[in-house]
Amino acid sequence: MAKEKKLVEQITSMDVDFAQWYTDICKKAELMDYSSVKGCMIFRPYGYAIWENIQKDLDARFKALGHENVYMPMFIPEGLLQREKDHVEGFAPECAWVTVGGQNKLSEKLAIRPTSETLFCEHFKNVIHSYRDLPKLYNQWCSVVRWEKTTRPFLRTSEFLWQEGHTMHESAEEAQAETLNMLKVYEDFYRDSLAIPAITGRKTEKEKFAGAEATYTIEPMMHNGVALQGGTSHYFGDGFARAFDITFAGRDNTVKYPHQTSWGVSTRMIGAIIMTHGDDNGLILPPAIAPIQLAIIPVAQHKEGVLEKADELKRRLAKSFRVKLDDSDQSTGWKFSQYEMKGVPVRLEIGPKDIENNSCVLVSRVTREKKFVSLDNVEAEVQAMLTQVHDELCARVLKNLEEKTHVATNFEEFLDIAENKPGYIKAMWCGDVECEDRIKDETGGVKSRCIPFNEEKLSDVCACCGKPAKHMVVWGRQY
Amino acid sequence: MAKEKKLVEQITSMDVDFAQWYTDICKKAELMDYSSVKGCMIFRPYGYAIWENIQKDLDARFKALGHENVYMPMFIPEGLLQREKDHVEGFAPECAWVTVGGQNKLSEKLAIRPTSETLFCEHFKNVIHSYRDLPKLYNQWCSVVRWEKTTRPFLRTSEFLWQEGHTMHESAEEAQAETLNMLKVYEDFYRDSLAIPAITGRKTEKEKFAGAEATYTIEPMMHNGVALQGGTSHYFGDGFARAFDITFAGRDNTVKYPHQTSWGVSTRMIGAIIMTHGDDNGLILPPAIAPIQLAIIPVAQHKEGVLEKADELKRRLAKSFRVKLDDSDQSTGWKFSQYEMKGVPVRLEIGPKDIENNSCVLVSRVTREKKFVSLDNVEAEVQAMLTQVHDELCARVLKNLEEKTHVATNFEEFLDIAENKPGYIKAMWCGDVECEDRIKDETGGVKSRCIPFNEEKLSDVCACCGKPAKHMVVWGRQY
Repeated sequence: MAKEKKLVEQITSMDVDFAQWYTDICKKAELMDYSSVKGCMIFRPYGYAIWENIQKDLDARFKALGHENVYMPMFIPEGLLQREKDHVEGFAPECAWVTVGGQNKLSEKLAIRPTSETLFCEHFKNVIHSYRDLPKLYNQWCSVVRWEKTTRPFLRTSEFLWQEGHTMHESAEEAQAETLNMLKVYEDFYRDSLAIPAITGRKTEKEKFAGAEATYTIEPMMHNGVALQGGTSHYFGDGFARAFDITFAGRDNTVKYPHQTSWGVSTRMIGAIIMTHGDDNGLILPPAIAPIQLAIIPVAQHKEGVLEKADELKRRLAKSFRVKLDDSDQSTGWKFSQYEMKGVPVRLEIGPKDIENNSCVLVSRVTREKKFVSLDNVEAEVQAMLTQVHDELCARVLKNLEEKTHVATNFEEFLDIAENKPGYIKAMWCGDVECEDRIKDETGGVKSRCIPFNEEKLSDVCACCGKPAKHMVVWGRQY
Repeated sequence: MAKEKKLVEQITSMDVDFAQWYTDICKKAELMDYSSVKGCMIFRPYGYAIWENIQKDLDARFKALGHENVYMPMFIPEGLLQREKDHVEGFAPECAWVTVGGQNKLSEKLAIRPTSETLFCEHFKNVIHSYRDLPKLYNQWCSVVRWEKTTRPFLRTSEFLWQEGHTMHESAEEAQAETLNMLKVYEDFYRDSLAIPAITGRKTEKEKFAGAEATYTIEPMMHNGVALQGGTSHYFGDGFARAFDITFAGRDNTVKYPHQTSWGVSTRMIGAIIMTHGDDNGLILPPAIAPIQLAIIPVAQHKEGVLEKADELKRRLAKSFRVKLDDSDQSTGWKFSQYEMKGVPVRLEIGPKDIENNSCVLVSRVTREKKFVSLDNVEAEVQAMLTQVHDELCARVLKNLEEKTHVATNFEEFLDIAENKPGYIKAMWCGDVECEDRIKDETGGVKSRCIPFNEEKLSDVCACCGKPAKHMVVWGRQY
């Protein structure tokens, strides 16, 4: 137990310093390493394995809905980026620019993609001619670059990994439906795979994506009450199509512009997992994306038959779960701490006494509940505890969200909550950007997260200016 | 049949113009599209799906040998790239350079990775301290950039997709074994998954990788006798470790340098597949990586029961194979041509007569052999034909390799073959770079492919200079 205490002590408590606690986990759970490249990070094997599991899960969801993967170049010539006015204004200021190729200065500088709408549009123009060519349902897994001033592992880095879906449709209705469907895919994925039920809704005009007609968002709340923009889905109308002169012959044989969407989630989801589920003993991973779902720790492994039995169990359980047997010469206490730090959802302990009783011990990473189970039905017991871990994580997230969501009906209340109570603020809003600006200024950073799909009517007037309210908005600080 | 002919006529015959034939297939099989970005290409869904199948297959082979995936930044600061002298000389001239980030000129310019040895070494220094930290068996899937003057789809593009393995070992022996093991993985993959049995061996000093002690290579021969460097595996000794000051405490408690390897294959493998297996009707894909293994074409689909039966067959066969049912309103002839063009290994035809007989027709893309099979055991019949397609492709490749490999025992013979007979030349070599240079100059581009593992002794003297021979070398022109 001495060693376990020591290892745990290496992490700063989340109540003492949440930011330092976060960084400690990133490093000590061996998720990432810093590099000498400004604003960029290294995904170590354990961190990248989480991303691979996320990719596999999401990719199957996309493909089940008919999406196909493609790969576009990483470079966007300056002229191409400038084709859609709002878009270039939004992204050009934070681009990294290639100005030299080989040993020659380039005649036109190239942005490294901060997002790929322009590249997709250029290609769509080549492959869309008739309504028979629609819809185009494309997705791309890649890295993108946005030159960030202050960076933090997973949450905000100059280069990050993501997927970006880009689709083109015959009608506005079909494109709008796609936009909402894909946000629903994200919402389902967050809840069912990441164990993060979260608020979804529409961004205000001020907060929408550069060039979009409408942006929808999922806004998970971190343990400390701060929001993370967890994924967005954009409806573009035919704005890009017009800017890029993409047309098709419709069913009525007239020339039409197609309607477009894009949607994306990134490796910042790993940051969301850490900050939503983690505790002072380290990471806690939702079973669906945990690289190791079950850590088998032999107890008194020097005793005859223990390692053999542990290995037999591992082979048996590896057929159904992602299993790691740690038979290294580290102490049992060290191993307990190690796999807690790494957020492995369930630990299985097996020692001489257990073997005698044809049983083993399962321990939940969330509640630390110990359960003695028979080896005869260990698969079902492990599955049950993994399901329990997932459900408990979801319940904790919902409880946190409920406890840290406050209602403000006037500006005094709003400012009081913003100053004293971490979390989200539900408040009515007149629809004017002036109120959004005022709230941000006077609170030192609280912004509209979204107009949630399940809007409530809290009162008739804007909590900021007192004019008639148009919407209920969820407000909050963000990463 | 009229339509079928017409579609086929759209491809240039490979005997008339091999380069144009290649480009025609790239475009008409919908593998890729050009973009306005110099030297870069777009992977369309069908082309990218081939890459996804390649990735899945190779990734499983790497992981089965204990390798873990990571992700390093795409940027390499100039100073970091310069740390290993030979390496920077080899790669700096073809780098793309980022000089502006956000709106500011960077104090140090950043290369976009042409390969990532330097980034991995910087990280290895942080994570390798003791022999207990070894081996590190890392791999990365990413895109890299090398500024190319003349480009060709898949074969040579300024940005391409690849995997790069980077490993560190306690001893030279272990690292050397890894280098050879990974080349063996490539050799097995080329033969068993791509249906391309190929020559493997060691590169000469002149042709080895910048910074490596030894480079091993797989050199598949294309249908026209030209070589493609299909994958390489490098042994670095401790050269990079010394340049980056990476050390570890050995088992004997002394400070040591670890020994390193790297190995990679890229999307140019898709080019190899096209140029090795394709014919004048289009692409031919090896079953292991074909996005569609079986195309089901209903015949007289307007007749009662045909589409229902075709759909029933599709659902049944989709459990075992990657299946596409084309029930569009295109003509049957158009469909036949279309899936031949796309290289689908097996076609299944089913019409009213077949349904009456409880049978269907299978057609091999390679031999066009038609086989009437009972629906009772259609799975086994499809599997048998897929296996047959794979075996026939391998046999054709070996036959082509044998027919187009020539022996030269003196320089006159060498020049005559180089001028008149496309393919590889086996010839003895003294080991001097002067002879390699002379051969390249006087033949207008023939280079040493490799010193094959199964060296033969053709004579005692170098075919170029007549001095005593050290090795047998396989020579050839390359893409």
